[in-house]
Amino acid sequence: MRPQIVLFGDSITEQSFRSEGWGASLTDTYSRKADIVVRGYGGYNTRWALFLLHHVFPLDSSKPPVATTIFFGANDAALSGRSSERQHVPIEEYKENLRKIVHHLKECNPTMLIVLIAPPPVDEEGRDAYARSLYGDNAREVPERTNEVTGIYAKACIEVARELGLRSVDLWSKMQETEGWQKQYLSDGLHLTPKGNGVVYQEVIRVFNGAWLSAEEMPLDFPHHSKIDPKNPEKAFQQKCL
Amino acid sequence: MRPQIVLFGDSITEQSFRSEGWGASLTDTYSRKADIVVRGYGGYNTRWALFLLHHVFPLDSSKPPVATTIFFGANDAALSGRSSERQHVPIEEYKENLRKIVHHLKECNPTMLIVLIAPPPVDEEGRDAYARSLYGDNAREVPERTNEVTGIYAKACIEVARELGLRSVDLWSKMQETEGWQKQYLSDGLHLTPKGNGVVYQEVIRVFNGAWLSAEEMPLDFPHHSKIDPKNPEKAFQQKCL
Repeated sequence: MRPQIVLFGDSITEQSFRSEGWGASLTDTYSRKADIVVRGYGGYNTRWALFLLHHVFPLDSSKPPVATTIFFGANDAALSGRSSERQHVPIEEYKENLRKIVHHLKECNPTMLIVLIAPPPVDEEGRDAYARSLYGDNAREVPERTNEVTGIYAKACIEVARELGLRSVDLWSKMQETEGWQKQYLSDGLHLTPKGNGVVYQEVIRVFNGAWLSAEEMPLDFPHHSKIDPKNPEKAFQQKCL
Repeated sequence: MRPQIVLFGDSITEQSFRSEGWGASLTDTYSRKADIVVRGYGGYNTRWALFLLHHVFPLDSSKPPVATTIFFGANDAALSGRSSERQHVPIEEYKENLRKIVHHLKECNPTMLIVLIAPPPVDEEGRDAYARSLYGDNAREVPERTNEVTGIYAKACIEVARELGLRSVDLWSKMQETEGWQKQYLSDGLHLTPKGNGVVYQEVIRVFNGAWLSAEEMPLDFPHHSKIDPKNPEKAFQQKCL
């Protein structure tokens, strides 16, 4: 009944309904107007995401999503030869995988609003402290992700968006504009704090509003309660419900 | 693809994706297992909810929800002859409307897990302070809702659940077990604070777990990332995705 907006991504999407999460905030903003559908897969990179494409976005759907955010890269950017090597995807393959995801979505619905979100920056000190809190002296000695390399993936993500004529959110750059982003926006050097979630929410809403998906301009699914005449409620529901 | 759990109710359901909201918490708990679909209609009573039934729960759906929470009563219990009179529904009609909603849902899906949630208690002082903060000296002199009357509706809701063999949450009683419930759980004497949302979440999860809808026992939709062999990712996806 309501249009669907899908959030497709890794753990930063999967966890977007935790405290002050950006997915929950979007759900509240589009209340009674659109359904936010979360399809976040913790630990996934774009290579593994490709296996899900036809299942999450079936080509024969009679009602494909009207909009999708694609938010991968934090795992693809894990360094080769380090402790998270298994998640690493080379940069050219990352770009190609993003193109494949976009092409599939366009095939699902040629008018779909597709927004590419670049990964957030990495706070290497925060990652290190987090590893130590888990493993003590057994923690890996060298970082499994660096901010510099994640920045290369973020840039690549924005390039693919430009190349395909899509809107995008350069989260990596945006967050680093704020002093103290390391602790303010990131809880373990990689995942988002409530404030970090707020940044994603604001940026996604800004893009949606700039496209044709402004919640304010969308109609409610059913009458606002103040429009219902208690003596003749049928009338308010006539157009949509009788 | 994933089973759907629908939250059907008034503003307390509609606002359940705000800060620490119970809807958002459920979405997080059922992450990658079930979709939480919010169908909250601020200001609605059960009489008006009936107009939505066939639209929110179409009988010809090929994939009806596996579970639904029905959470009305806070508006039905608005007092006749007072400022919110338009929302008032007599107690016997309230009970009959709940039965109609349940019967419709059973027709949609005979095995649907249906949970009736009674309205939360009303803090009359809190309502009064809220009215004064909005309208100053022009605020209504007499309460538009009382805790006593809402308690009668809550009791009726639990009775209907028992009569129909359904699970229920007696929120009205549960919240009042805690000293200071008025300010701890209610933000304006009627709607929920983050802590109040926590109570709803805990109670709903308790009921779901006691039925057959425990998130812990439900399978993930796709493999956990740790189960993917980076050298042979196809294998992990074979069963569900190839």
